[in-house]
Amino acid sequence: MQLNSEILSKLENIVGQSFVFTDEETRNHFGQDETEDYVFPPNVVVKPSTAIEISKILKIANQYKIPVVPIGARTGLSGGALSVQGGIGLSMERFNKILNIDEQNLQVITEPGVITQVLREAVAEKGLFYPVDPSSMGSCFIGGNVAENSGGARAVKYGVTKDYVLNLEVVLPTGEIIWTGANTLKNSTGYNLTQLMVGSEGTLGIITKIVLKLIPIQKHNVLMLVPFYKAEEACEAVSAIFRAGIVPSALEFMERDAIDWTLQFVEGLNVQVKSDIQAHLLIEVDGNYPEILMAEAEKIMNVVEQFQIDDILFADTEDEKKALWKMRRSVAEAVKAHSVYKEEDTVVPRYELPKLLNGIKNIGRKYGFQSVCYGHAGDGNLHVNIIKGNLSDENWKMEVPKGIREIFELTVSLNGTLSGEHGIGFVQKDFMDIAFSKPHLELMERLKYVFDPNGILNPGKILP
Amino acid sequence: MQLNSEILSKLENIVGQSFVFTDEETRNHFGQDETEDYVFPPNVVVKPSTAIEISKILKIANQYKIPVVPIGARTGLSGGALSVQGGIGLSMERFNKILNIDEQNLQVITEPGVITQVLREAVAEKGLFYPVDPSSMGSCFIGGNVAENSGGARAVKYGVTKDYVLNLEVVLPTGEIIWTGANTLKNSTGYNLTQLMVGSEGTLGIITKIVLKLIPIQKHNVLMLVPFYKAEEACEAVSAIFRAGIVPSALEFMERDAIDWTLQFVEGLNVQVKSDIQAHLLIEVDGNYPEILMAEAEKIMNVVEQFQIDDILFADTEDEKKALWKMRRSVAEAVKAHSVYKEEDTVVPRYELPKLLNGIKNIGRKYGFQSVCYGHAGDGNLHVNIIKGNLSDENWKMEVPKGIREIFELTVSLNGTLSGEHGIGFVQKDFMDIAFSKPHLELMERLKYVFDPNGILNPGKILP
Repeated sequence: MQLNSEILSKLENIVGQSFVFTDEETRNHFGQDETEDYVFPPNVVVKPSTAIEISKILKIANQYKIPVVPIGARTGLSGGALSVQGGIGLSMERFNKILNIDEQNLQVITEPGVITQVLREAVAEKGLFYPVDPSSMGSCFIGGNVAENSGGARAVKYGVTKDYVLNLEVVLPTGEIIWTGANTLKNSTGYNLTQLMVGSEGTLGIITKIVLKLIPIQKHNVLMLVPFYKAEEACEAVSAIFRAGIVPSALEFMERDAIDWTLQFVEGLNVQVKSDIQAHLLIEVDGNYPEILMAEAEKIMNVVEQFQIDDILFADTEDEKKALWKMRRSVAEAVKAHSVYKEEDTVVPRYELPKLLNGIKNIGRKYGFQSVCYGHAGDGNLHVNIIKGNLSDENWKMEVPKGIREIFELTVSLNGTLSGEHGIGFVQKDFMDIAFSKPHLELMERLKYVFDPNGILNPGKILP
Repeated sequence: MQLNSEILSKLENIVGQSFVFTDEETRNHFGQDETEDYVFPPNVVVKPSTAIEISKILKIANQYKIPVVPIGARTGLSGGALSVQGGIGLSMERFNKILNIDEQNLQVITEPGVITQVLREAVAEKGLFYPVDPSSMGSCFIGGNVAENSGGARAVKYGVTKDYVLNLEVVLPTGEIIWTGANTLKNSTGYNLTQLMVGSEGTLGIITKIVLKLIPIQKHNVLMLVPFYKAEEACEAVSAIFRAGIVPSALEFMERDAIDWTLQFVEGLNVQVKSDIQAHLLIEVDGNYPEILMAEAEKIMNVVEQFQIDDILFADTEDEKKALWKMRRSVAEAVKAHSVYKEEDTVVPRYELPKLLNGIKNIGRKYGFQSVCYGHAGDGNLHVNIIKGNLSDENWKMEVPKGIREIFELTVSLNGTLSGEHGIGFVQKDFMDIAFSKPHLELMERLKYVFDPNGILNPGKILP
């Protein structure tokens, strides 16, 4: 794909010369996200700042059949923002304003290029709570969260991004600008384009404004780390906690290696792990009444003590809580620093977790790869990091994908699916046939075509 | 539309002779729901019991271009189940089995023809909670709730039907049977067809199995009735309660007339209303700890006492609670018994409620009609009952629709929309242009076409 000077000058006329980039450094910068080691630079990077500019750009792209890839903070793990067919890389970084924190209606209207953590802090200052907290929240954009339907540790109690999106301003691939719904908590008015857009990974439209529901903030929490001698029992405990009537605000699972590598990677985390501990659960409850939280923590202790566990570590101070969360949030980075790896975002009904974990280990033995598993166990969402380690390039390229396919087949056989919160993007699309029948995939293709008749928007994603 | 004997015999071959009905009584029975006084009988009523039977029926319907209307418990308020173009009325009443209450994963798999209240009670017996409680829950089908994305009194804390639907088995209009998603709490795998199907009012596919999320049951609640001297202040209090950090499990608004008519209609409700009270809020908080509920009730009292209110009535016993809820749930029926009426299902961000209520009264004065308003104020969802009373037929037919259009224009101008929980169906589709631009409506039409190329499924609904 080559963009000639005529097209470039049209783009410059729309956004201004200083927001069109064709230099290699910028193109490479916007050609990668956090997905393995892929680099797919766009031919040109354009930085618009209004929906109308995007509309004009899309009209040109349609005229010349040029791929357009919306690019957020490039923290994605499924390659959703990679310009796999070149074309125009549409950086959303200038859409960086929180437009209105509506304290009367408990809503916020924001542009998509706001960092999730910045948004969370801005509403927290008004006593309001946006609960969705992907591990990358310190750097990811809220628009990317909407595009991938991101989750995070608190999803187990509070839900994922889709549960907070009330309405979206979207530029359709053909250039029309619409609001998908209304700024209301309930809506039974026509087809739910809002929820169709959430998680569509930038393939159906470009999000330019987001209306999010907020809730009153919870003032207190209790955090505990429970070491299990058997990883399988840690998984069993997850389901048992819910059956005891508790909905924790976080319920995270970490295999032994995940913690060991993280303790090596992050300095100054004062956590000791005994040699025969296989896994940990990090469990949080939150609320407005400390005495209730203590009662709930006690109930949780009663549940986990039915399994083979070591001493429970309670985080007594804010610093101790921060340290435990830093450990959990650093796992992905620590694994990345340790070895080349592939990450799968499996999700199953939570009681199936032990079967999933055992199955993954068996598949690893069959194909000779090591895996490190951790994730949002309360949601049944297990991140499977497959480690290259000493595997040959040949093996990594030819054998490991067969093992991954078996992992996904197992996941689907357990009533689960391919991705809980990272999306399909570029790297998982060849596994979509495991989760969906041919008529189903064809239906999705026709849906895509309705929005994007020329297939210009983020091509080569989601659908195989 | 006439169905010849060849087609009828094909239908009989599929479901058996005893489940195909062409007599006038059955056709009329299945030709009406709770929407005003409309009757649109199908040409034939068919009662299948499996997805495969429905698939076969739809293939025949496609071959002969016969309309097919899925019909649930006929409790709908927007005419979604009316056979406005005749054809095959597909009664879902034989899909009446709860297939699996999964206590390990907190899920239930059910057929769509199960009565919502039956489902709620069945899971409650296992200590689990399906919170969605439309006023018609004693007679409506869960499948109809999914089709209309029904809400109810508890939606303010627990969300609406869409928030509990994890996965659907759907027969597509072309006859393919698919599962829309997976039985997982999180899912970022392809386009969200589950949420596209929810609220699509039987126009995109026929739901044959439903997987719902359940939550641990809440053991206690506190219920209070607060009489306001000014209706507008009751609306203002709604937003103020949330701003005080409380999320009530119900927050219902009833105008004076709604209560008066209900007290006349339902015998033995021991509620006294002073003559100068304009409106009531029915407020519930729930949870597992009675002492916390009392603290929250006190906070609510502190909020409402800032307005002009009369003595708050606390329901001390289960019987008193039942009576108050019976009063609230009987309002629709009481209005219906009082006069011919039209019901609009307006929804706005909750702080806009006073503006909406005032605007509705002004529009009523302009067009000479009386209205009675009540509904789920915590969600900003106000049911507007427009009373025929002594209006001439001419006025009712020609002038009142202009007033309704103005009400919806007001709703949309307040960032709200046409329907919060009843759906668009047959009766509101001519107002869709108020909420959606032309390109948006065309997009919805093309979406419908992707699923249903021959337009056989529930034609004449949603889209103008």
